[in-house]
Amino acid sequence: MKSDLDTLMAERDLDALVVEGPDGLASANADFNYFVGGQKITGIVLKRRGEPAVLVYGPMERQQAEATGLQLVPRDRWNIRDILREHPDPYEAQVEYRRRMFTDLGIRGRVGFYGTVQAGASFALLAALSQRLPDLTVVAEFEQSVLAAARLTKDEREIELMRAVGRKTCAVVQTAVEFLRSGRAQGDTLHDTGGAPITIGRVKELIRREVAARGLELDQGLIFAQGRDAGLPHAHGDGAAPIRLGAPIVLDIYPRVPGGYYHDMTRTFAVGYAAPELERLYGDVRAAFDRVVGALRPGESTLAYQQLACQVFEERGHATVASTYPLEEGYVHSLGHGIGLQIHENLKFPYYAEQYGGDVLKPGVVFTIEPGLYYPSRGMGVRIEDTFCCLPDGSFESLTPFPYDLVIPLEQ
Amino acid sequence: MKSDLDTLMAERDLDALVVEGPDGLASANADFNYFVGGQKITGIVLKRRGEPAVLVYGPMERQQAEATGLQLVPRDRWNIRDILREHPDPYEAQVEYRRRMFTDLGIRGRVGFYGTVQAGASFALLAALSQRLPDLTVVAEFEQSVLAAARLTKDEREIELMRAVGRKTCAVVQTAVEFLRSGRAQGDTLHDTGGAPITIGRVKELIRREVAARGLELDQGLIFAQGRDAGLPHAHGDGAAPIRLGAPIVLDIYPRVPGGYYHDMTRTFAVGYAAPELERLYGDVRAAFDRVVGALRPGESTLAYQQLACQVFEERGHATVASTYPLEEGYVHSLGHGIGLQIHENLKFPYYAEQYGGDVLKPGVVFTIEPGLYYPSRGMGVRIEDTFCCLPDGSFESLTPFPYDLVIPLEQ
Repeated sequence: MKSDLDTLMAERDLDALVVEGPDGLASANADFNYFVGGQKITGIVLKRRGEPAVLVYGPMERQQAEATGLQLVPRDRWNIRDILREHPDPYEAQVEYRRRMFTDLGIRGRVGFYGTVQAGASFALLAALSQRLPDLTVVAEFEQSVLAAARLTKDEREIELMRAVGRKTCAVVQTAVEFLRSGRAQGDTLHDTGGAPITIGRVKELIRREVAARGLELDQGLIFAQGRDAGLPHAHGDGAAPIRLGAPIVLDIYPRVPGGYYHDMTRTFAVGYAAPELERLYGDVRAAFDRVVGALRPGESTLAYQQLACQVFEERGHATVASTYPLEEGYVHSLGHGIGLQIHENLKFPYYAEQYGGDVLKPGVVFTIEPGLYYPSRGMGVRIEDTFCCLPDGSFESLTPFPYDLVIPLEQ
Repeated sequence: MKSDLDTLMAERDLDALVVEGPDGLASANADFNYFVGGQKITGIVLKRRGEPAVLVYGPMERQQAEATGLQLVPRDRWNIRDILREHPDPYEAQVEYRRRMFTDLGIRGRVGFYGTVQAGASFALLAALSQRLPDLTVVAEFEQSVLAAARLTKDEREIELMRAVGRKTCAVVQTAVEFLRSGRAQGDTLHDTGGAPITIGRVKELIRREVAARGLELDQGLIFAQGRDAGLPHAHGDGAAPIRLGAPIVLDIYPRVPGGYYHDMTRTFAVGYAAPELERLYGDVRAAFDRVVGALRPGESTLAYQQLACQVFEERGHATVASTYPLEEGYVHSLGHGIGLQIHENLKFPYYAEQYGGDVLKPGVVFTIEPGLYYPSRGMGVRIEDTFCCLPDGSFESLTPFPYDLVIPLEQ
C-alpha cells in the first residue's frame, strides 16, 4: 500500500520516481491516479525516497491540483516560452524543460519512470534524458514495478471504496435481472408487456443507464453474451438478438468510478428454465468456484488455486489448460486477476505451472475468482465471478454480494 | 488519412510500424483503435510499408479480431509456454517472444513504435529489442508521428462518424437546457416543481444518463461550472451547489463513442436573466468566435486565428496570452485543438507566436474553436466552442448544430 512506498523504493535501490500524467489519458493512467486520487488533471508526479510526492500542475487546473493533497509546484516555474525561444524543436524543448525540472527538484540517481505514455515519444524522451543528465540513471522496471508492488495491497480506505463499487455494481445487475423477469414468453423468445421483443441491446442500454446513474463508467465495455457467444469468453454479445428462453447468458460487468477503482463480477443466467445439460455445466462451474473460495488462505500461491480448479474440472470430464494449451473448449483461461485502479493488475493467476508460481495471497490483496466452461460448438458457456479481498485478519470477503441462481423465473 | 499511410511512411523512411494494444488500455489507445476500429481487443498491429496491416490477436478474442477486417495472425503462432521454459524471467520471455514475432513477420529496418504503454516497461522492451535485433532500428518519433500525420486528416467515413457524435451531443445538451428551463425561481436559486433545489449534481446526473442512453461515454469527465468556477477553464463544478439565477454556467461536454470518435462543445448559459456585465462579456467572446469562424480558410495557419482572437479581445480591453504569459485573468488559453480518436490530437493551435506556427488548415482536418474570457475574481467566465471540419471542397462545417443563446428563460 502507499505507506510501503519508501520501503519498496529502498529495496529496489530507487532514489526517485517520475510518474507521467499525459494529456487525454488521465483516466487510463492508473499509476498517476494512484497519486492524484482520480482528479481530472494533467501534470507530472515526482517523488524522492523519504520525501512526499510533488505534483507539477498547470495553472488552469489549480483547483484539482489542490484537491490531490500533494505538494504543488506550478509548471510555469520553468518558462516553456523562454525554452522554446532557445530550442525551437518541440522535442529538444521538452528534453530541456524536463532537464531543468529534474535538476531543480533533485531528481537524480536511480530513477524509475511510470505512467501511461505513447511508446515512441516516451522512448525518445527517456533516451535523451539519460544522456543529458549524467547523474540520472533510467531504471526501467518491466514487471512488478515499485508502484505495482505498492498497489498490490490495498489499505482500509481503498477496500472501503472498492466495497462501494461492488454494492453499486450488484444493484445494477439486480435491475437487469428484474427487467428480464418482467418479460413474457412468446414462442422461445422474451417480449415486453407491449409485445416487443426484448433484445440483448435493450438490456445493455438499461445496464448502461443504471451504471451512469450511479456515477460509474463502463470504460472497458460490457459482456452480455448468449448461447454460442456465451461459449466465447470475450464475445460481447449481439445487440440485435432477442433473449432466448433457456439459453445461457453470461453477464460480465466491470465498471469503475471514473479515475478510480473497478469492480468485476459475472453471473450466468437462463431466462424461464435451463435444460439439464446447462444445469450440469453450471453445477460444474459452481463446484469449482465453491472449492476454490472455500480453500482461500493467506500465504498460498495463486497457482495452487488454478491447479485446484483444473482438478475439479478434469474430475468432471472437462479438458483444461493444465493439460492442453492453447485450448478452445473446456476450461480455457486462468482463474482470476488482481483488480484495483486497473481492471487487470498485479496479483496474477497463471494459466499453467510453467508461467510462474510466484504470486501469493496476503492481507490487502483484491482479486477475482472466475472459473468458467466454454463449449461454443454446443452453443453453451458458463462463468461465475466475484471480486474478493483479503482482510487484515487473513479472512476473505466477497465484495460481490449477489446470489448465484442460474434460472430467472418469469413473473407470468 | 489512412490511405496516405504508405506515402507518409516513405517520406519518413519507415520500413514498418508496430502498434501496441496493451491489456486494459484499449479504449485509451487511439493509434491502436485507428487500426482495429474501436473493437475491444488486445494484441499488436504490425504493418510493413506497402503491405496491409496484420493483427496478432488472442484466441479468446477471435470474433472481435475478425470484425477488424485486418489480416490475422493468432498470438499462439509463437508458443509463449515454450519460451517461458527457456526464459523463465517474464521480461526476457517477452523480448524473445517479440524477437520471434518480428523476425517471422519481417519487421526489420527502420521501425516506428506507437500505442499507449507503460513508460518504464516499454522503455525496457524497446531498449532490449534494439540490441537483440541488429537489423532493426527503433525510430522514436516525438511529435507528429507518422500515425498522428495520417490521423490529422479524416476521410469521409470518419467525418460522417464525427457528425453523428456531434448530433448526439447536441441532443444531450438540449435535454439539459430543457431541464433547466422547467425549473422555478425561488429567491435567487432554481428549484424543481416539487420545491427541491436543482443542484449542479442533478444536472450532471441527467447529462450522464442521456449520454449513456445514446451509447456514448464521458471518459474525460464533464465541465458544468458556475460563477467563480466558470472563471477557471478546467474547474469541473461543485455538485452540491444549487443553480443560481443569472450566474454564468459553462457547460463543456466532450463525449465519445467507446473506442471511437470524440465531439467537443461548450455553451455558456445564464438561467432566467443575465446582468449587463455578463451580457457584455458574452458579446466579446461571441465576437471573437464569429470573427474567427468567418475567417476560416484552407491554407491558413492556426497561429493566425489565435492572433485574430487575441486582437479582438485586446480591442475590447481584455488581457491575452499574446502579451502576457502565463496569464490568470482574461483570454488565458489557446483557441482550439485537433480532435478525433483523442480529445486533443494533431492540429495544434499555439498560445503565442514562439510556440510554433506550423499547423495549417486543410481538407479533412477536424478541430475545435473555443475562445473564452475568465475573471474568477469577478465570479465570471464565458466560453463558446464548436467542433469544425474542413470538407473536401475547402469549406468549413460546424459539427455542433446548437444555438448560441446565453439566457435560458424560465417557463414560469
